[in-house]
Amino acid sequence: MSRSGIENKDPYLAFARELAQEAGKAALPYFRAGVAVDHKPGKGCFDPVTRADREAEQVMRAMIGREYPDHNIKGEEFGLEDKGSEFTWVLDPIDGTRSFIMGIPVWGTIVGLTHRGKAIAGVMCQPYSSEIFSGSGQESLLEAPKGNRNLKVRRCQSLDRAALATTDIRLFANAADARAYGRLEEKVLLSRYGGDCYIYCMLAAGQIDLVVETGLADYDIAGLIPIVEGAGGIITNWEGGNAVGGGRVVAAGDAQMHKQALAILAG
Amino acid sequence: MSRSGIENKDPYLAFARELAQEAGKAALPYFRAGVAVDHKPGKGCFDPVTRADREAEQVMRAMIGREYPDHNIKGEEFGLEDKGSEFTWVLDPIDGTRSFIMGIPVWGTIVGLTHRGKAIAGVMCQPYSSEIFSGSGQESLLEAPKGNRNLKVRRCQSLDRAALATTDIRLFANAADARAYGRLEEKVLLSRYGGDCYIYCMLAAGQIDLVVETGLADYDIAGLIPIVEGAGGIITNWEGGNAVGGGRVVAAGDAQMHKQALAILAG
Repeated sequence: MSRSGIENKDPYLAFARELAQEAGKAALPYFRAGVAVDHKPGKGCFDPVTRADREAEQVMRAMIGREYPDHNIKGEEFGLEDKGSEFTWVLDPIDGTRSFIMGIPVWGTIVGLTHRGKAIAGVMCQPYSSEIFSGSGQESLLEAPKGNRNLKVRRCQSLDRAALATTDIRLFANAADARAYGRLEEKVLLSRYGGDCYIYCMLAAGQIDLVVETGLADYDIAGLIPIVEGAGGIITNWEGGNAVGGGRVVAAGDAQMHKQALAILAG
Repeated sequence: MSRSGIENKDPYLAFARELAQEAGKAALPYFRAGVAVDHKPGKGCFDPVTRADREAEQVMRAMIGREYPDHNIKGEEFGLEDKGSEFTWVLDPIDGTRSFIMGIPVWGTIVGLTHRGKAIAGVMCQPYSSEIFSGSGQESLLEAPKGNRNLKVRRCQSLDRAALATTDIRLFANAADARAYGRLEEKVLLSRYGGDCYIYCMLAAGQIDLVVETGLADYDIAGLIPIVEGAGGIITNWEGGNAVGGGRVVAAGDAQMHKQALAILAG
């Protein structure tokens, strides 16, 4: 059967997994090895980029070029390669560059595949801890040295029992968004900063009930959507629409809590 | 030779390592396994405690009772057992309970040994990633699946090239301390929240240049001091004195930067 048929998603997910693993392999030698920190041109604020970032994306682009030469590629480092396809591979070679630079193993390589703007396969690979999280939208899996397991969100309808995570309150795009987040934060049981891609995977694993962020790029989130959804979670933008484009994102393990969160964020 | 002689430090460090490893083994089955979250009695703010916390500390107390029955023990969960000894084992079975609860593997078991109030041996064990950081004050070591290595701080005298870490700005004890931290934060290259014990170990590993925190307990820090110092780093309270009691702590890889940080924090 042809690899380009949407009816057979597994070859895509298997290939996404290969991509993330190979990119992780390319990035890992730079982890805790005195990475040089650059300024990324054309961005307003400080954004560290590493050689690891670029090499890992190049590895993935070469593999996609061989396997699916007619598919589009959108990557953090080298932008959009548009072939006019309905399929786009969305790549973040190192999500969580601050964690990477500081030696903290909660960064990861994110690979997503979108079809007509819907995320249909996603993988997050953390190569230092040798963890691979993958999702098809229907199911999600963690492969890890301490054992493999299917990922399943936690049902939790009550905000006063909820664990809320976000990467960094300072990343909130504006004061109104930060206040909206604050309204939610004061209603939950506990909250924590730090984590990037890792916190979405922990939501899929039933450890976190809510993730709320703003200012995301498409490559920050596309590959995480099928992991969250495959584990039974809900992930949208703050307006309740498709989160695939990034921006302001809300993920929840419980549909009822997702609704509550949207309402509180809307004010 | 007797195990109680200070002249032979290595048996203490080896035993601290055993303690941390056994405590980690006791805690690990509860990690990502739907841990029940309690409120800790007698504390003003929310502080999650888990069964894992208690069991891991009990394991260590039993081991110390067998090996060094005349030594004092100070642990997060069960307080001080004072035998009138010059030696005190200072135990934090799970440092980073929020990380633990949320499934994020940057928590750890911290074991410190103090002699007349000076931290002389310390170990941090992260059992999910199977990492053990240990320090004698003279040298420090990381043992990990991806390879063992001696830990060595990074020399960095310039704040505008520095990486600064803290667990959570919201944990700062008061507004003046938060402002002092803010003065430092605006001078560094990059900063990040989240990490607990892990960020001190990454400072020892030369990945982070500064760690600044407040409101620490003795068990949060005693075991990390010999790891930081053994890697060539400096760790004191904000007044430049012994950090072993906790409170407000500054750690730096570079002595010059440590001085600068103290001055900026003092205002």
